[in-house]
Amino acid sequence: MNYDPQLMKLSADAIRVLSAEAIQKAKSGHPGMPLGCADFAFALWSKYLRFNPENPKWIGRDRFVLSGGHASMLLYSMLHLFGFGLTMDDIKEFRQWGSLTPGHPEYGHTDGVDITTGPLGSGFSSAVGMAIAKRNFVSSTGLDKSGLFDAQKIYVICGDGCMMEGCTQESASLAGHLKLDELIVYYDSNRVSIEGSCDLAFTENVGARFAAQNWRVIEIGNANDFGQCDDALRQAQKSDGRPTLIIGHSTIGYGAPTKAGLAKCHGEPLGEEELAGLRKNLNWELPAFTIPEKVSAFCAERAKENVAAAAQWEKDFQNFLDADPLRAHKIYQFLGREVPADIQEKIASGVPYDKAVATRAASGAALQVAAAQVPSLLGGSADLGPSNKTVIKDSGDFTAENPAGRNLHFGVRELGMALAANGMALYGTAIPYCATFFVFADYMKPAIRLAALQQLHVIYVFTHDSFYVGEDGPTHEPVEQITMLRSIPGLTVIRPGDAHETAQAWAYALQADGPVALLLTRQDVAVYDEKTAANVDVARGAFVVSDEEDFELVLLATGSEVNLALGAAEILRRDGNKIRVVSMPSQELFLAQDFEYQDKVLPFDCEAIVSIEAGSTYGWHRFVGAGGLAIGLDHFGASAPYKVLAGKFGFTPESIAAEIIEFYSADGCGCGCEDENCTCEEDHCDCEDGACHCQDHK
Amino acid sequence: MNYDPQLMKLSADAIRVLSAEAIQKAKSGHPGMPLGCADFAFALWSKYLRFNPENPKWIGRDRFVLSGGHASMLLYSMLHLFGFGLTMDDIKEFRQWGSLTPGHPEYGHTDGVDITTGPLGSGFSSAVGMAIAKRNFVSSTGLDKSGLFDAQKIYVICGDGCMMEGCTQESASLAGHLKLDELIVYYDSNRVSIEGSCDLAFTENVGARFAAQNWRVIEIGNANDFGQCDDALRQAQKSDGRPTLIIGHSTIGYGAPTKAGLAKCHGEPLGEEELAGLRKNLNWELPAFTIPEKVSAFCAERAKENVAAAAQWEKDFQNFLDADPLRAHKIYQFLGREVPADIQEKIASGVPYDKAVATRAASGAALQVAAAQVPSLLGGSADLGPSNKTVIKDSGDFTAENPAGRNLHFGVRELGMALAANGMALYGTAIPYCATFFVFADYMKPAIRLAALQQLHVIYVFTHDSFYVGEDGPTHEPVEQITMLRSIPGLTVIRPGDAHETAQAWAYALQADGPVALLLTRQDVAVYDEKTAANVDVARGAFVVSDEEDFELVLLATGSEVNLALGAAEILRRDGNKIRVVSMPSQELFLAQDFEYQDKVLPFDCEAIVSIEAGSTYGWHRFVGAGGLAIGLDHFGASAPYKVLAGKFGFTPESIAAEIIEFYSADGCGCGCEDENCTCEEDHCDCEDGACHCQDHK
Repeated sequence: MNYDPQLMKLSADAIRVLSAEAIQKAKSGHPGMPLGCADFAFALWSKYLRFNPENPKWIGRDRFVLSGGHASMLLYSMLHLFGFGLTMDDIKEFRQWGSLTPGHPEYGHTDGVDITTGPLGSGFSSAVGMAIAKRNFVSSTGLDKSGLFDAQKIYVICGDGCMMEGCTQESASLAGHLKLDELIVYYDSNRVSIEGSCDLAFTENVGARFAAQNWRVIEIGNANDFGQCDDALRQAQKSDGRPTLIIGHSTIGYGAPTKAGLAKCHGEPLGEEELAGLRKNLNWELPAFTIPEKVSAFCAERAKENVAAAAQWEKDFQNFLDADPLRAHKIYQFLGREVPADIQEKIASGVPYDKAVATRAASGAALQVAAAQVPSLLGGSADLGPSNKTVIKDSGDFTAENPAGRNLHFGVRELGMALAANGMALYGTAIPYCATFFVFADYMKPAIRLAALQQLHVIYVFTHDSFYVGEDGPTHEPVEQITMLRSIPGLTVIRPGDAHETAQAWAYALQADGPVALLLTRQDVAVYDEKTAANVDVARGAFVVSDEEDFELVLLATGSEVNLALGAAEILRRDGNKIRVVSMPSQELFLAQDFEYQDKVLPFDCEAIVSIEAGSTYGWHRFVGAGGLAIGLDHFGASAPYKVLAGKFGFTPESIAAEIIEFYSADGCGCGCEDENCTCEEDHCDCEDGACHCQDHK
Repeated sequence: MNYDPQLMKLSADAIRVLSAEAIQKAKSGHPGMPLGCADFAFALWSKYLRFNPENPKWIGRDRFVLSGGHASMLLYSMLHLFGFGLTMDDIKEFRQWGSLTPGHPEYGHTDGVDITTGPLGSGFSSAVGMAIAKRNFVSSTGLDKSGLFDAQKIYVICGDGCMMEGCTQESASLAGHLKLDELIVYYDSNRVSIEGSCDLAFTENVGARFAAQNWRVIEIGNANDFGQCDDALRQAQKSDGRPTLIIGHSTIGYGAPTKAGLAKCHGEPLGEEELAGLRKNLNWELPAFTIPEKVSAFCAERAKENVAAAAQWEKDFQNFLDADPLRAHKIYQFLGREVPADIQEKIASGVPYDKAVATRAASGAALQVAAAQVPSLLGGSADLGPSNKTVIKDSGDFTAENPAGRNLHFGVRELGMALAANGMALYGTAIPYCATFFVFADYMKPAIRLAALQQLHVIYVFTHDSFYVGEDGPTHEPVEQITMLRSIPGLTVIRPGDAHETAQAWAYALQADGPVALLLTRQDVAVYDEKTAANVDVARGAFVVSDEEDFELVLLATGSEVNLALGAAEILRRDGNKIRVVSMPSQELFLAQDFEYQDKVLPFDCEAIVSIEAGSTYGWHRFVGAGGLAIGLDHFGASAPYKVLAGKFGFTPESIAAEIIEFYSADGCGCGCEDENCTCEEDHCDCEDGACHCQDHK
């Protein structure tokens, strides 16, 4: 390869012009970063990044994380130049319906895109997870002895925005602590953000901050110079035992005649005139959407070189596998993220059913079996492991010195943890889990959304799942978090009702092909008797746990409230009411069943369905009907022993039964009046005098 | 005051023993931090903190933020000792139902608690907002010339957990940038968190990191020594123009014989034996729940001194007010956070209605009027001001040099921003607003929840409120965020349908007594004609925008979909269908209306209600019924021009009308079959052969 400086400049200019043209054609996009960052990105891709366009998912490749996802044209330019099959027609369709070049890079949609980015900071934080997964994979399987992964790096490109986000700082702290020296982050420091100069809001010394977090810091004085970028990257190749931050001082919109260096070239097309000026500035005379032949040829050669290196690597890898079938078996278990087909039975037999047990404890028992059966499973908590019951007992801690350890200490960094879990799943050899108190899922929302969007197999273990937290009070008692999770497309939420359901929930989570959240109790809950347990079928979302012929009323409950519903049913039956009790650990799984099953469990012609859940009732009317009774908690919790709270909030069998009786009072009226002829089932009117004022209902 | 070292030690020990006893009695709580932090906290309260137990809300007081809210017994001990009316009986009721001493400190519940804390980092970040609000208040009103606020400090106590959270790092960066030198943060560095030593996850150099973020850093070698704490606090009083971090090296659970220094004293009672050991260690011979008389007397004297100083301050303040009635008027506008009674009319007259306009643009116009009318209004965006239209044109930027500026540049720090807004509201003189793209509300969830829990008057301006974002694609297109917000108790969510509704939404938001989120379009939406506009009544949550006598179908829409519903209604009416169209900018406000109003707008006996909203349908069945038609988007968005997306996702008048016709097909069947006798309204069965298989529905 001939890294002629002029050719390098020409190549970077080609990326600049192509990016600006695509953005102009789309009438939408972010030219500033592709133009300012082209020199560094090209230095990286042309000389250092180990990729394989013939097998974009090659496990031995370096990972490329464009944390500033709005610079997507930078990445698409590279994928076009280096043979990933992204055609010029694809580039011309930038940001159009169904194209391979959407506004922000989308994992699973475009070959060569290692991660979906856009929300700032998320790429950086997930890259840390990629490095963690790599280390665990390599050292758990003996691959560390092969040397095959020694060169593997995780490269990240960030802008000022990423550097301001809190998740970046959480993850930088964790990466420095774990000495993840395969992590090489380029900080494109153009000192411009959307509102203007970074001087408006961001004047810290980023390099000193990273140094304080145990990073090596390398600076590039002029990052719009290939040679200087190359020097920094060469220096970064040789580890000093710490992750590396390369700070490149660049010019946003480099080359644009009047907008370079200014916020106005960040997030909108340059405009025809400015684009013409850019071309003039760069002495660009080729037609639009044309790459100079010399550049194409150079990139093709580089791609070929990389393909050959990857082929050699695959050969060496195969030899390594062949040399030790037992070791190879383990490697395949990681690569396939294998889960035994009988995992449900195996877990079921490892969970105790002999006495009331918190579902978090049942989860902890399930985890031990899961960990023994699924070598690629690893994870941890945001400093609540002992409470979340997420420690794998037979394993050590994951540390710089012991990367085969499967217990991660994420620290009190919920968002950084969840984004790391995404990166672990993306790396390709891990089934990650992560844990905290359910109320702190709030911190993790951006990451959970990204997991759902990418359909990453991440397991969330959320314990302390309701006001039953008790004494810690409202700041620690989830109410609306369950609604937040259920409304995320592509996320499966499971709130198991006892140890049996918890065991099945873990089995489901391990076998899922997308993210799964487990919501678990802090407090003990009774374990179903054998007859009830036989009905449990978590994978179908809901099932009957107690039944009567010709039932007139269905109590529909989740989690710790299933036992409560069973208790309330018992009381109601004393008066001759015919009751069915349904456990619904997962709304999503139930709604994914066919009509026949749904109708069997919750007959559509049954008009009396009451939902019971110790959380927001928001969303339950889908099952109980617009005027139906949804028993829940539509206000914040309080600080007191949980049994006291249960009494005060009406979560006792007696209170539930009374509320139901009142709702379906003899005259069929639910409004609270005493008028025998009233048939109103709504609870909306004030009837303090006992007469009915629901004139409009009759 | 006689700061005799022995008395100081005795006082700190009194706090230790009292805290441990209360936690033991409650059988729940966190002794580690109160025991380890007692010396510093007592040094602060006994010598530096300016408070007024006779008027806990005294505006001139220092603020005390216990960011590690789990150390609540530390704060309750202080409130008991320094005369805030918290009795020993209250202390004995620690963590019990209805007591003044809940598990974590609750603002508005216990006198002297300046902020609700618990979620780590949130206190620190909100303290930054308190300092911002103070500066803006003082310099906007001329109070800077009085010197009355020169001494005012915002004190924060944090632990290791707070230091790990990303929001802390975002806010530290902002505070350093803004040179908020009234901010004095104590970092109780006991190096122990729940999972064990901080060495497990947190080995960065915190002091160096803060120094890199423009903070002054002071260290205390032994923070369990009153004298050393006192020295650090004395040093901190004299500003060097930067915020101050005091790092105190302390022992968690100081004094506990076997648990001190260990994680196991963090989050559970010491146990009777260990408590006895603590008492023995400290030579404590008093009965349980007893404060030594010398300590009580000393604290009472200190309280008296503080009360006298506050009284003098109030006198000086009154003189300052009296000296200039015009200036006094402005000060009262801030203190009362006054909003003119006719704000709605004023804003309405400042918003343009002559052509289609994005509601974010209408919001921008409304904001200009609001800012002119409400001097205490200030805010900004997380680096999206120009897009969010949240810049107050007649004001400069809030900076260290110009604290009277009302435009805040929060940087790309959404959570730090929202937590700062909470602090601004808590300070007592500001109505803060903050803004970003709606999808990034995800980052802010923990803060929005805390605003709702404390009923803080914060206004969230969320623009780019649906898939209509267009080209930026799924990472930037909110879907489920609207559900996330609606499920938060105590938050009012308003999604206005045009410029008229936007004007009223702003008026409502300014007059609310809790947090309000405004969801606004990126794209232009038609402005209602005069007749329609006359019906707009945002404060009631929903209202009829188009009606027909004997209507059979209600189209219920929000935001940009109101116009869509009007268009669909027009199409449906062509076939003789009788349609009502209801705009529902706010579910919460509508559900707060009396039955009569609700029934007038959405008659409960109307069985055909269709909701239309460009977001998750989760929750809409409350209005449309279990088997009703909720039109929305229950999957992620995509990257394409928004008009293309609208077509692909079925958000055109024609598609909506067709979907409704199909649902309510002639035979009254909604299941998709062609059986004339089928009356099923469910869309759950597969009827590929045209025959009906909904046997159970007939």
